[in-house]
Amino acid sequence: MAQYIDVDNLVTALQRFADERGWQPFHTPRNLMLALTGEVGELAEIFQWLPDDKAARLKDDPDVYRHLHEELADVLLYLVRLASVLDVDLDRAVADKLVKNAIKYPATVGGLEQR
Amino acid sequence: MAQYIDVDNLVTALQRFADERGWQPFHTPRNLMLALTGEVGELAEIFQWLPDDKAARLKDDPDVYRHLHEELADVLLYLVRLASVLDVDLDRAVADKLVKNAIKYPATVGGLEQR
Amino acid sequence: MAQYIDVDNLVTALQRFADERGWQPFHTPRNLMLALTGEVGELAEIFQWLPDDKAARLKDDPDVYRHLHEELADVLLYLVRLASVLDVDLDRAVADKLVKNAIKYPATVGGLEQR
Amino acid sequence: MAQYIDVDNLVTALQRFADERGWQPFHTPRNLMLALTGEVGELAEIFQWLPDDKAARLKDDPDVYRHLHEELADVLLYLVRLASVLDVDLDRAVADKLVKNAIKYPATVGGLEQR
Repeated sequence: MAQYIDVDNLVTALQRFADERGWQPFHTPRNLMLALTGEVGELAEIFQWLPDDKAARLKDDPDVYRHLHEELADVLLYLVRLASVLDVDLDRAVADKLVKNAIKYPATVGGLEQR
Repeated sequence: MAQYIDVDNLVTALQRFADERGWQPFHTPRNLMLALTGEVGELAEIFQWLPDDKAARLKDDPDVYRHLHEELADVLLYLVRLASVLDVDLDRAVADKLVKNAIKYPATVGGLEQR
Repeated sequence: MAQYIDVDNLVTALQRFADERGWQPFHTPRNLMLALTGEVGELAEIFQWLPDDKAARLKDDPDVYRHLHEELADVLLYLVRLASVLDVDLDRAVADKLVKNAIKYPATVGGLEQR
Repeated sequence: MAQYIDVDNLVTALQRFADERGWQPFHTPRNLMLALTGEVGELAEIFQWLPDDKAARLKDDPDVYRHLHEELADVLLYLVRLASVLDVDLDRAVADKLVKNAIKYPATVGGLEQR
C-alpha cells in the first residue's frame, strides 16, 4: 500500500538501541520532548547568523553541510522515538494532517494567503 | 536495499503542495526552521502541565491523543520539508548518526552513563 | 548599587499569582521549561514567513506589534518564574555571563569573528 | 514609579557590546530569534534526563547549578536584545500581560482549571 513515510526500521533500531543500554526508563515522553527541544536548538544555531542566500547554499561548505546532517538526524531520531513511546503511527498522522492542510489551504488560493 | 526510513513520497507530496499554492518562495531554510520551532512549541504545550505517568498514557484521552498526532505530524512535515530544500538525504543522515551514536555509547556500558 | 536588571517585583507578583490560584504544584522546573518552550514557539511563529526587512518593521503593523508584546512577555514571564523556582538570581547570572562574553569576544576583534 | 522589571542597564550594555564588536548588522530580529531558540535548547538539555525531584534540587550540584545560571542568562540576554532591536518596552509588555492573565484566570477559580 502506498505510504507517505516508512519509519518502521528506525523505530525498531531505536528500540533495540535503548534496550541494549538500559535506557528505556529514561525514554519517557517528557524526557524525549525536552531532548527534542535541545536538538531543535542545535539545528537553529546553524542558521542563526546566516543571511537567507547563504542558508540556501549550506552544501557549499562541507563541514557545515555534514554538521547539518547530524542535527537534522538528531531531531528526527528523537521525534520518531517520541512517537514510538507514545504509540503514534507517524505515517497515519502525516496522512491525516495532509488531508486537513489541503482543506484548510485550497490549491487555487495562491501563496499570498498562506498565513 | 534496507533502509531506516523512507520519506520519498512525503518529500514529493510536500513539494507538489507548495508548488500548487505558490509557496516555494516562502520555503526558505530559515523560514522553515522558524516554522519548525513553532510546531515544536505546540508539541511541548501538550506535555507542559502533565505528570510523567499521565504523559505516558495520552492514549487514554482521545481528544488529546488526536491533537498529539497533529502536532507530531506538523513537526515531521516541516523537518522533512527543511531537509528537502537543503538537499539532505534524511535516511543517509540517520544511518550515519546511528553509527556515530553506537560508537559514542557502547552497548555494554549501561544506561547510567547516558549523560 | 548598579545592576543590569531588577526583576524583584515581577518575581513577587508571579509568586502571588501562583499562590492565589493554587498553581504552585504545577510550577515545577520541568513544567516551566516546557511552557517556556511553548511560548518561544509562539514567538517564532511571528517571524516565520517574514523577510528580514519586514521583521525589522513590526512596529508598522499595530496588531502584529501588540501580539509581539504579548509573546515577548510570555517568554519573559516563564523565564523569570523558572529562575525563581530554581532560586537563581538572574541579575547575578547576567552580570557573570557578560564578563565571560567580554573575555570570549574581545572588543577589538570585530564582528566578523562573531562565530 | 513602581515597575515589574527594569532592564534598562542591560539594554544599554548589550547595545554597547554589539557596537564595540561591529555586531549590529548581525542583530536582526530573525537572527536573534534563532539564537534565542538555540539557547532555549541548551537550557532544555539541562532538564532532559532528570526526574522532577532532582530538577527541583539543581542547587545541590554546584557544576550544574553554575551551568544553569549561564543558560538562563543566555536566554535572557537574547530575549532582552530581541525586544530592544524591535523597540519593545518589556516592562510595559509584562504589565499588560499580567492584567490580561488576571482576567483570564480569576484568583478564585483555583489551580485545577489552569488549562
